[in-house]
Amino acid sequence: MNLPIPHSITSVSSDCLAAFQNRFGAQFSVAMAVREQHGRDESAFSVPPPEAVLFAQSTQDVSDALALAHKFNWPVIAFGVGSSLEGHLLAVKGGLSLDVSRMNQILAINSEDLTVTVQPGVTRHQLNDFIKSEGLFFPIDPGANATLGGMCATRASGTNAVRYGTMRENVLALEVVLATGEVIRTGTKAKKSSAGYDLTRLMVGSEGTLGVMTEITLKVYPLPDAINAAVCLFPSLSDAVNTTIALIQMGVPIARCELLDKNTVKIVNKHSHLNLPDGDMLLMEFHGSPTSVQEQIEMVQEIANQYLAISFQWASTPEARTQLWTARHNAYFAGVQSRPGCRVITTDCCVPISKLADALLISVEEAQLSAIPYFLVGHVGDGNFHLGYLIDPNDDDERARAEALNHKVVTRALSLGGTCTGEHGIGLHKMDFLKSETGLGAVNVMRLIKNALDPKNILNPGKIFNEL
Amino acid sequence: MNLPIPHSITSVSSDCLAAFQNRFGAQFSVAMAVREQHGRDESAFSVPPPEAVLFAQSTQDVSDALALAHKFNWPVIAFGVGSSLEGHLLAVKGGLSLDVSRMNQILAINSEDLTVTVQPGVTRHQLNDFIKSEGLFFPIDPGANATLGGMCATRASGTNAVRYGTMRENVLALEVVLATGEVIRTGTKAKKSSAGYDLTRLMVGSEGTLGVMTEITLKVYPLPDAINAAVCLFPSLSDAVNTTIALIQMGVPIARCELLDKNTVKIVNKHSHLNLPDGDMLLMEFHGSPTSVQEQIEMVQEIANQYLAISFQWASTPEARTQLWTARHNAYFAGVQSRPGCRVITTDCCVPISKLADALLISVEEAQLSAIPYFLVGHVGDGNFHLGYLIDPNDDDERARAEALNHKVVTRALSLGGTCTGEHGIGLHKMDFLKSETGLGAVNVMRLIKNALDPKNILNPGKIFNEL
Repeated sequence: MNLPIPHSITSVSSDCLAAFQNRFGAQFSVAMAVREQHGRDESAFSVPPPEAVLFAQSTQDVSDALALAHKFNWPVIAFGVGSSLEGHLLAVKGGLSLDVSRMNQILAINSEDLTVTVQPGVTRHQLNDFIKSEGLFFPIDPGANATLGGMCATRASGTNAVRYGTMRENVLALEVVLATGEVIRTGTKAKKSSAGYDLTRLMVGSEGTLGVMTEITLKVYPLPDAINAAVCLFPSLSDAVNTTIALIQMGVPIARCELLDKNTVKIVNKHSHLNLPDGDMLLMEFHGSPTSVQEQIEMVQEIANQYLAISFQWASTPEARTQLWTARHNAYFAGVQSRPGCRVITTDCCVPISKLADALLISVEEAQLSAIPYFLVGHVGDGNFHLGYLIDPNDDDERARAEALNHKVVTRALSLGGTCTGEHGIGLHKMDFLKSETGLGAVNVMRLIKNALDPKNILNPGKIFNEL
Repeated sequence: MNLPIPHSITSVSSDCLAAFQNRFGAQFSVAMAVREQHGRDESAFSVPPPEAVLFAQSTQDVSDALALAHKFNWPVIAFGVGSSLEGHLLAVKGGLSLDVSRMNQILAINSEDLTVTVQPGVTRHQLNDFIKSEGLFFPIDPGANATLGGMCATRASGTNAVRYGTMRENVLALEVVLATGEVIRTGTKAKKSSAGYDLTRLMVGSEGTLGVMTEITLKVYPLPDAINAAVCLFPSLSDAVNTTIALIQMGVPIARCELLDKNTVKIVNKHSHLNLPDGDMLLMEFHGSPTSVQEQIEMVQEIANQYLAISFQWASTPEARTQLWTARHNAYFAGVQSRPGCRVITTDCCVPISKLADALLISVEEAQLSAIPYFLVGHVGDGNFHLGYLIDPNDDDERARAEALNHKVVTRALSLGGTCTGEHGIGLHKMDFLKSETGLGAVNVMRLIKNALDPKNILNPGKIFNEL
């Protein structure tokens, strides 16, 4: 395929490779199989793999690696589990894939303050399995079992963000290695602070272009006293969407509010061997005290009934809920497997809640008209939805038509006051959209910051913004 | 008094003054009375006033002013109502006070999406008075009736932050004028976004050193269905603090949880002609549905009783609540007036909730032992408290002893994993503490960003960090 950006691979010097080999021994690999494994993600882009892979095991490793890479002007791309959807991990300028998946220690749990400190290679499942026995959970859940480092880097969110916020709201403090190898700390364990520039939030969402995170302090939450979940079936997509808009506008503190259209329900049922009812639906979850959960449920039922809800199917047991949300999280992979050999071009726009129907309904119609297989999932309580166009990677025409659909979705979202990316990040795919969204002035400020912190442009070069 | 930083006033050129006079006419003033009015804030510092004052009326005014100031290398200090507690508004390098208080239009209210867009000179009272009829409110409430521009600049919070977050969580988008006069936009009206660096949160808390905000899009909230408030009296400060720790750790979604010690209660009663009971107390407020408010109250009563609460006095009517919170917000001014002619040195540390007793109780003892008059208020649900040392500004020894007390409070908070400033900002007063808190590495990153965006250092120079 043709990348939308210049694609110039640097050629790493033998001195540089020798220096890494010397410092890191068996942690450093130039084997093609390892490089290829680090040379792709879940995006639809194909580029040559990184020139080498380093498996870092400590902050010192990351610091030494960056100091060496800085000396040799060699690009460095931090890598967790490779679940990026936007090409963040691809070595478009060559360079080293800095795999932090072995930095997977949970360093501290402070249940009295509802915080944990983890290394960047800890995955969200690993964290939740570990803190469950303390009566705690970490709510942010992008579909994949991503690393917390990767989730910081893309400012990830997921199904619980409607109630608990995104990585923006849930990272308290960071240890970050800068381009030179220098290690800094941002934030504290206090809940709030006015101490200087908010470097924590500058790093969260910077997609590996400003530093490599080596320690992350997160907010965690007490497991709710009561949880209930429901599948609510509607006669039409528009009824499901309008129910969502109404319940958010009425301030129902719903914990999850996810949309699947009937096309996607079929795909999910087949993949996960489920019997979700046939039709457009909301998957909902309620957290709180037993009384508050009951109150929320009554409010939502009343609203849903106004929009002709056909049925509520309850998932009251933990097992039933796990099945439901696993199926939801697997929707992406269900989509991929529904068309063997396909790649996915995923939209990710997010609009103010009052504009959700305007943004979503026509976008789905366009997908249906295109005859390109697709799936639709949505964190609709946040105004965020994803169309996944399942394209044949060898069919340039189909790819172009899918990109044209994505372009329409984004342009419409921007015209409604929204963003081109609610949670996946800019990566390679949305650099032009970023300019349209925020204007060249703001993009230039981002470039000035990038240049100030990484003047040699070795940290994940070629992502977020085109070359200066 | 002696400032802790070099104090070198530039001398503005007559060409520069003429250029401003020519462009802005009567909006521009060099009258000493106007300059002096803009030459002080609520901090205990005294420095010569700015060399001139400009009353901006539009984004274009701000842009033109910055372009001119940039040309003449003239410092610019944005000014709202002058309620900074940390010397942010003082012209330590000379320069222009850019008064934005006339930019006080509420530009848009979108009740469907729970957002408003305002100019920076709108005050929080003005906003709340305006949106009340829409059934909405904006929760962030530093004691003073500050401007929203000033509140953005210091990353303000206040009594409701325990439930609703701070300015960090409640600013969605900004229009900002950069040092050169260029106007940029950050963020969108969508609830979340992963579109590039989080410039909104970089600007929030940057204390006027990176740009001047000219439009602010904020989250607002539906007025709760039910509200109740209580004054809860305790036999000791430690019982009040331990009640707070327990209720936060149990996840009670309390809307306000404010501490006053008995010394402060006396001061407040006298100033506000109230009859609050004599003793250490928590002022609490509960928001939600009637059922949820009742549930919260029952939980809090149970906890408070474990800590030997003496009495609950309810403020169920809006009038009673207004009286209560007005008295709380006036605690600062009550303190000032309790010692005629005094100035206040205010501490602002914030610690993880489990460390609140360790941070607070001994700090109050130290204040009592010092014999310097003081008051104590605390947003204790956030782990944030303020001791206000009421010093005689002409007594250098007393000032030094108060600063030594503050030093102890901050050092202790940092050792407990906290921050030197929960909500007031660094300003002139906490520059050395910032270095201790975050380390020179992070401060240098802040300087790199400052230098990249404002290489001539004209935007509020001399604040947050000392000279390079």
